Amino acid sequence: MQYTNFDSTAAYRQMADYAARFGFDFKTALDAERVQQCQAPMAGGLCYSWAAKAVDSEAIKLLQALADEQELIAKYKALLDGEVINTGEKRKVLHQLLRGEQGQPVIEDGKNIGEFYRKELQRFCDFAGDVHAGKFKGSTGRPFSTVVQIGIGGSDLGPRALYLALENWAVAEGKKKLDAKFISNVDPDDASAIMTAAPLEQSLFVLVSKSGTTQETLANELFVKEKLKRAGLDSSKHMVAVTSETSPLARNPAYLDSFYIDDYIGGRYSSSSAVGGCILSLAFGPQVFKDFLSGAAEADKMALDMDILKNAALLDALIGVWERNFLNYPYTAVLPYSQALSRFPAHLQQLDMESNGKRVNRDGQPIAYNTGPVVFGEPGTNGQHSFYQLLHQGTSPVPLQFIGFTESQKGDDVTVDRSVSQTKLKANLVAQIVAFAKGQSDSNPNKDFPGGRPSSLIYGKQLTPAALGSLLAHFENKVMFQGFVWNVNSFDQEGVQLGKILTKKVLSGDSGDSALDAYSKLLGI
Amino acid sequence: MQYTNFDSTAAYRQMADYAARFGFDFKTALDAERVQQCQAPMAGGLCYSWAAKAVDSEAIKLLQALADEQELIAKYKALLDGEVINTGEKRKVLHQLLRGEQGQPVIEDGKNIGEFYRKELQRFCDFAGDVHAGKFKGSTGRPFSTVVQIGIGGSDLGPRALYLALENWAVAEGKKKLDAKFISNVDPDDASAIMTAAPLEQSLFVLVSKSGTTQETLANELFVKEKLKRAGLDSSKHMVAVTSETSPLARNPAYLDSFYIDDYIGGRYSSSSAVGGCILSLAFGPQVFKDFLSGAAEADKMALDMDILKNAALLDALIGVWERNFLNYPYTAVLPYSQALSRFPAHLQQLDMESNGKRVNRDGQPIAYNTGPVVFGEPGTNGQHSFYQLLHQGTSPVPLQFIGFTESQKGDDVTVDRSVSQTKLKANLVAQIVAFAKGQSDSNPNKDFPGGRPSSLIYGKQLTPAALGSLLAHFENKVMFQGFVWNVNSFDQEGVQLGKILTKKVLSGDSGDSALDAYSKLLGI
Repeated sequence: MQYTNFDSTAAYRQMADYAARFGFDFKTALDAERVQQCQAPMAGGLCYSWAAKAVDSEAIKLLQALADEQELIAKYKALLDGEVINTGEKRKVLHQLLRGEQGQPVIEDGKNIGEFYRKELQRFCDFAGDVHAGKFKGSTGRPFSTVVQIGIGGSDLGPRALYLALENWAVAEGKKKLDAKFISNVDPDDASAIMTAAPLEQSLFVLVSKSGTTQETLANELFVKEKLKRAGLDSSKHMVAVTSETSPLARNPAYLDSFYIDDYIGGRYSSSSAVGGCILSLAFGPQVFKDFLSGAAEADKMALDMDILKNAALLDALIGVWERNFLNYPYTAVLPYSQALSRFPAHLQQLDMESNGKRVNRDGQPIAYNTGPVVFGEPGTNGQHSFYQLLHQGTSPVPLQFIGFTESQKGDDVTVDRSVSQTKLKANLVAQIVAFAKGQSDSNPNKDFPGGRPSSLIYGKQLTPAALGSLLAHFENKVMFQGFVWNVNSFDQEGVQLGKILTKKVLSGDSGDSALDAYSKLLGI
Repeated sequence: MQYTNFDSTAAYRQMADYAARFGFDFKTALDAERVQQCQAPMAGGLCYSWAAKAVDSEAIKLLQALADEQELIAKYKALLDGEVINTGEKRKVLHQLLRGEQGQPVIEDGKNIGEFYRKELQRFCDFAGDVHAGKFKGSTGRPFSTVVQIGIGGSDLGPRALYLALENWAVAEGKKKLDAKFISNVDPDDASAIMTAAPLEQSLFVLVSKSGTTQETLANELFVKEKLKRAGLDSSKHMVAVTSETSPLARNPAYLDSFYIDDYIGGRYSSSSAVGGCILSLAFGPQVFKDFLSGAAEADKMALDMDILKNAALLDALIGVWERNFLNYPYTAVLPYSQALSRFPAHLQQLDMESNGKRVNRDGQPIAYNTGPVVFGEPGTNGQHSFYQLLHQGTSPVPLQFIGFTESQKGDDVTVDRSVSQTKLKANLVAQIVAFAKGQSDSNPNKDFPGGRPSSLIYGKQLTPAALGSLLAHFENKVMFQGFVWNVNSFDQEGVQLGKILTKKVLSGDSGDSALDAYSKLLGI
């Protein structure tokens, strides 16, 4: 297997040539037939529609050739089989193994890592069951009603987005067990506000730090412990840890229990591990989390297909590369027409930008082409009343990723002017796709819509746990495939280190930099 | 006064020339002296620091010349005096008049519009006082404990961001009167979840729609009324309206009272009107809202200074133009180191992208230069553990806007490793500014930070109501000045119309477009 810089491939040159003479007019081409044809199935009952993308059959051929030349599926298989894909940190990449075994068993030093993951899954599922059964209670004997996650970055964004995504569904299905809250920021106002709102006697805290040394998380842990102590509570009966087996948090009597991940689970890929699973199982019951994992596992399996027209994650990745490197769009927007997905764009922002916001290849050599785009987004219809003006009529087109569902989660709706709100929501979504694609001429240029603004749509019947697992895995795998195309390491994050080093210098009182001292003075440090 | 396309000015050509030979190395230039010198005072005790921007003394000269040639201050004064600046809709632009009278009195058909605004301010402040005094109660006689805003876009994002920004401060100061919630999305799961969580007997609803015809808001109003009815409550005792005097919601017995704005207050600029003021006065008391307005009015006054080095909003605007049109950055990130500002970037996203995401000039003629950038952001330190990887080491630099405060809002803190969390928060902030600016060489390219990534910093002692007013007005005025430079109309939003039209067609069952029908079918419409 070859790891080749993108601009050294034959496919790159062919795509560049084709882009230079690209004249596909998808505004005109977008008709019922194209909408019906340009779809790829996804796991969990979802479907990926790319009819409104600026891609014609010739472009599809080139994208398939790129996938083949860069051996994207072979590289994915190598990852599944436990190859050291995270070259910078010399680590395997095994988040897919948390939810299924698509490749060979991964054995290291005689340890079957899949078995380890499955054992931890069962342990935190059992723990959640025990909490629900009242086997564990707060130190004053009252049952737990609330679970509070303390974590930052991947220990916060993914789990929070997933919790919000399923909360209404769980309420409607009678599956909601505990309320969940999250403390992430080192800003003391964040922890203080949550600790004021949470019923401390009935709160169970999940402390999440793989290394056990995350500055923000440890500060917040002590913040929480101080509050529990002042409330006369025994924090060791109110807190579990999610960490690695070698961290100071492991097997520590300060916690009710500890659940483990390892170095092969990157923070932004950790929602499928105890990092997401512990709080989701506590909030909604273990079966909901297992259903979520099943949807993700099915998506991982479907991502093995060599045919890009049958592999939604791969196709989405390749179209994104086409847009980034040849149509030269520096950003992409994620627009879920589902309030439940309100924080899903923030999670994807981390997933994508932290994975592929790289300027060196997997061997650490500088590269000369663009990599990951800026990702942003808010739920529709809210975004329509906000930044869509620029999307429709700004000077720089932004590729769009819509997400929508036939049914709401709660089914609690009202009819106004002969339609329910869910229908209005969907009507707005489909109207936007067509408005962005086709635009509308007007003799008044201020009312003229150029159109030609590409979008894709992921749709399904309802946002269930399995659909959510499929959605999460889709984007994880999309980002992975793009990383393979760009020949970058999507699994390290060296870019966060310098800030940490300088922060420590500031806090030590000896920064060694006059500008840093001057800024510190401005802020009263 | 001349309204001239940006690329027809002498300043544009001079800036383009200078950009072509621009070699200012702010990595090296950034020292204590530059940090101390490159600051402009702001209202409410804030300060704008631009030391880490890619701007030297020659660039400042050119930016001053641009401000003078495009008559930015004269145009601002014309706006204040009531000129029809919103050319597309033929409307005055008077949001600054909501918080102070910096120009001539604005009289129209014998009506003094400033007096009208002040009268409405007093009316909703009095109403809030009456609610707090128990003069108004729910229909079962219980006092109000919760206020729920029903609105979307500017009726949601700004008020929500401001409420969250002051909630902790109000708790700490003993000024919090009512809890606030927001229903915005037409997704029925949004309204359903809020209505389940709100104590209906004790909830007061503020229905906000200037036109009284906003589809999402009217659907949610009926959703709410249905729930109130089913709970045996009289909705006319639980709801006030914020609207225009000519709307169907005005003087309507279905509401306890109505408070008015007019066509000269754009949605995204309406936080200073009853749209923001009603809910903020109810939540925190009228004086808090008046203090907020005072901070904004002071900022509006300071924005009149012709000297760009003394006018933070103007300088920020001009540096943004320099970055957008000559350094060719297509985006900008807003990074508040304050959890209270968690939704402030979403508000700025609307403010900026809806105002200046335009491709025609104020006369409706197409323009040939870039206008408003994509705006996104999340609070630090959370963002550090998310998308900062791309900001530090991605292939495309993103200009940054940091915001930070010396003190937290609650003062509830913990000492870990000899520093409180607020100090850690600030240390991270200053470390990031310097890390982005200076970078760090490393023989391993994967650990190499190129630096040269520009940022500015707005800082102050604490996020108080006056500081928040200053912050909001700063960005409103920044966006206004940029619109004047680009010669666009920053106060209309024709780009949202096409989607509305197509939505109606879909809902009518006769879309007239085969692609629209096919998409509708996919989503079960």
